[in-house]
Amino acid sequence: MKSGVVLMTDQPNEDFLHRLADLADAATLPRFRCTLHVSSKEKPGWRFDPVTDADRAAEKALRKALATAFPDHAILGEEFGSEGSGRFRWVLDPVDGTRPFLCGLPLWATLIGFEVDGRAVMGMMSQPFTGERFWAGPDGAWTARAGRRERLRTRDVGDLSQAVLHTTSPEGYGPLSEKLKRLMAKVRMTRFGGEAYATAMLASGYIDLCLEPALQPYDIVALIPIIEAAGGLVTRLDGERAERGGPVLAAATANLHEQAMAVLCRE
Amino acid sequence: MKSGVVLMTDQPNEDFLHRLADLADAATLPRFRCTLHVSSKEKPGWRFDPVTDADRAAEKALRKALATAFPDHAILGEEFGSEGSGRFRWVLDPVDGTRPFLCGLPLWATLIGFEVDGRAVMGMMSQPFTGERFWAGPDGAWTARAGRRERLRTRDVGDLSQAVLHTTSPEGYGPLSEKLKRLMAKVRMTRFGGEAYATAMLASGYIDLCLEPALQPYDIVALIPIIEAAGGLVTRLDGERAERGGPVLAAATANLHEQAMAVLCRE
Repeated sequence: MKSGVVLMTDQPNEDFLHRLADLADAATLPRFRCTLHVSSKEKPGWRFDPVTDADRAAEKALRKALATAFPDHAILGEEFGSEGSGRFRWVLDPVDGTRPFLCGLPLWATLIGFEVDGRAVMGMMSQPFTGERFWAGPDGAWTARAGRRERLRTRDVGDLSQAVLHTTSPEGYGPLSEKLKRLMAKVRMTRFGGEAYATAMLASGYIDLCLEPALQPYDIVALIPIIEAAGGLVTRLDGERAERGGPVLAAATANLHEQAMAVLCRE
Repeated sequence: MKSGVVLMTDQPNEDFLHRLADLADAATLPRFRCTLHVSSKEKPGWRFDPVTDADRAAEKALRKALATAFPDHAILGEEFGSEGSGRFRWVLDPVDGTRPFLCGLPLWATLIGFEVDGRAVMGMMSQPFTGERFWAGPDGAWTARAGRRERLRTRDVGDLSQAVLHTTSPEGYGPLSEKLKRLMAKVRMTRFGGEAYATAMLASGYIDLCLEPALQPYDIVALIPIIEAAGGLVTRLDGERAERGGPVLAAATANLHEQAMAVLCRE
């Protein structure tokens, strides 16, 4: 293990996040809207969980780059599991939204998160078909497309009745479906189908609440710093930090988060 | 009214559809992800129906171009209603998917349909953020992006159990919600949130069924020729042609359409 001082110098920076995203894009984009070999993993609650060559190729490329640049860091990835241990961990979802990917819909993304001592501190989301990136680190939360870079900032609609809610699907909620219905009845409108991309739109100020019933760490770690640095708040429904996944609520403001939690968690 | 022979020469062609789409794009794209003046129309079944400057500006631009090029043709548009009458009618949805538009999601599109004697014969769908167009006319169904043009063709998955179903939202189904649930239980997976863009993915061979409970003519007329020329079949749930809207099912093949109709319309 390197010393703390050396680690400060060697810690991943924004440029490194973009280099990783470049590698992932090179593995995913050429496979989007192509004939793919699709297999199906067993996962409770879903009958069909496609794993594509794109997922595997992107995660392999990311793991190889991380092993070279930061051999001491741990890695958790959706496709190839956990390796290593220590204070520093990369959390990878090579294709978040494999289902929209398979449907030809440009709402999938590569998620690359970086944790220090279990806390997400940097994150990158890359959507190469639209040419968009959303990321956060020590300099705040940013988006870029076609060379144009802008700071991300959530909006403040004030009241739940004015909020736009997003959840990927009404399926998969199980016992939480009543909570979803209660929240849907309180907001201005509900949209479906966006996965991580919808969270990027929350950080961009176009969506106010993102609710998901059962996230894995690799679904959310990269997004936490983006949400937080843009002014939002994201927690599990038990109020704890969201790094370990579970049922997760992201909100554009702390005030809106509190209003939504009051609806979701009342008896 | 011009004679039939002259009309054959003067009828709109593919180039004209693209020129119309250019006009719409110039009105919509600069307003995407900007602060918008949003008002709300009254419409039964929806609590929030945003109408933006983009909708109105795009429809105005299209109507102006049509009045110049084809002053005898009738027009039906979402924002400014019906004008004129006769054998030839343009059916316009300047921004299909105003809700994803407001959410920053690139799944909205401009729809431009052309009917002869009540039958949709040409259609254009333009999504300027992703730079995509999908259209159909006498030369079949096509898509283009970044100068690359490809013929559209639906896929044939054979059996309903292998099909990917799309519906924009589980909301708005009313008494049809049991039919939706029955179909969802039979297919491989169901996706939400795509509006017209999902139909373009059906024509492209990535989605197999698109079900919508309550379309208006301007939601579907432009898409009918695209679906049909790509090899698909689209009808109302009563089996009639879909030009007048209502509950509509589009399928990648006639065989799959029949299988889905058997599930949807059994007692």
